[in-house]
Amino acid sequence: MTAYTATVTVRLKHGVLDPEAETTKGALKRLGFDLEDLRSADRFEIDLEADSADGARYRAGEMAERLLANPTIHDYDVEVDER
Amino acid sequence: MTAYTATVTVRLKHGVLDPEAETTKGALKRLGFDLEDLRSADRFEIDLEADSADGARYRAGEMAERLLANPTIHDYDVEVDER
Repeated sequence: MTAYTATVTVRLKHGVLDPEAETTKGALKRLGFDLEDLRSADRFEIDLEADSADGARYRAGEMAERLLANPTIHDYDVEVDER
Repeated sequence: MTAYTATVTVRLKHGVLDPEAETTKGALKRLGFDLEDLRSADRFEIDLEADSADGARYRAGEMAERLLANPTIHDYDVEVDER
């Protein structure tokens, strides 16, 4: 078994309203920052042991499907690094 | 001016309690998943125009310092990609 860290990034699907990101974008503009757009996402860093990087990726994907992401409104991607 | 996307990742500093991550970790374990640890972070993807990647990185770092991160409890890092 090898120790991996799987990083799951959960984003809102294109077209889903994101009032938190709009508020943050507006606040940055009021502070004088020049930006075109801002999107927010959740990131989960999961330490787990697996036989292979593909095994770790598969399990982290299952965690996203079951709990971390809501497939109706979210997309997600998984990156795996050896620890 | 070149179009860049700066990705700011905001994490709790080591030692700061993260009840949301603890809850998520517990829920995954109850679903039968085997994991050692889970950390959560916020990720902001900021589209901006700048003269150089370093300029974009500097401005995104300023945004993190001023608004996106709370320096008392958060660390952050910035990655910049050309769009």
